[in-house]
Amino acid sequence: MLTRIDHVGIACRDLEEKIAFYESVMGLSVVSREVNEAQGVREAMMQVGGVLQPGYVQLLEPLGPDTPVGKFLARRGEGLHHVGYGVEDISQALAAIGGSGIRLVDQRPRHGSMGASIAFLHPADLGGVLTELVQAAGPA
Amino acid sequence: MLTRIDHVGIACRDLEEKIAFYESVMGLSVVSREVNEAQGVREAMMQVGGVLQPGYVQLLEPLGPDTPVGKFLARRGEGLHHVGYGVEDISQALAAIGGSGIRLVDQRPRHGSMGASIAFLHPADLGGVLTELVQAAGPA
Repeated sequence: MLTRIDHVGIACRDLEEKIAFYESVMGLSVVSREVNEAQGVREAMMQVGGVLQPGYVQLLEPLGPDTPVGKFLARRGEGLHHVGYGVEDISQALAAIGGSGIRLVDQRPRHGSMGASIAFLHPADLGGVLTELVQAAGPA
Repeated sequence: MLTRIDHVGIACRDLEEKIAFYESVMGLSVVSREVNEAQGVREAMMQVGGVLQPGYVQLLEPLGPDTPVGKFLARRGEGLHHVGYGVEDISQALAAIGGSGIRLVDQRPRHGSMGASIAFLHPADLGGVLTELVQAAGPA
């Protein structure tokens, strides 16, 4: 069902500072920047590895303290926030995982980074790991 | 410098329970089990994606409360523990990253999962993210 580790989501207080860090120290490059009002984040995707099957470091800066990432920072500080796995068919994956009794944060796929369809699974049913499913945008 | 997201490390209290979960719900399979006395963990690597460039979910159960993962569990509970990135040449990568002022947990590479050479970077210098470099074992 899971085709790859699509990304790791990292919560930070200063997006530009972290972008500069991953560029200069780790040699990564930004491939996408977005503001996602629905999720309350300003974010950047930094590509890890080649074009054939890249992964991403997703840097997340909250738009305010009352957003999910804002609350995460207040509670735990900066650090790893979630992991996203690639799937071929997100509706099928959600049905299978939901059918096994795992609580879904998102009953239906919603808009994610770079045009992907995404959905979150509840961390309490995944050993404390906030887990995201990602179906990448198809060819235009 | 970073060639891929090699794995996400997940701290758990019961390795066998979590293996069964990722097998049954996520369809992953165990490709390696190890006890690493030096790191104080019992672990399993579960493959995500194909053979060309697989990633891994690394499940980590502490050997005792006074180990790094044991202390992590006591402080933060189960969940995402670290991220591991692939590199071509770990000695070169450590020299470059150390040269940029990042503190290295491991000054020299040490033994990691599945025969890899690994080294950890200090989370305080990486925005709270415990970060591992992984040079996969070469052909025998």
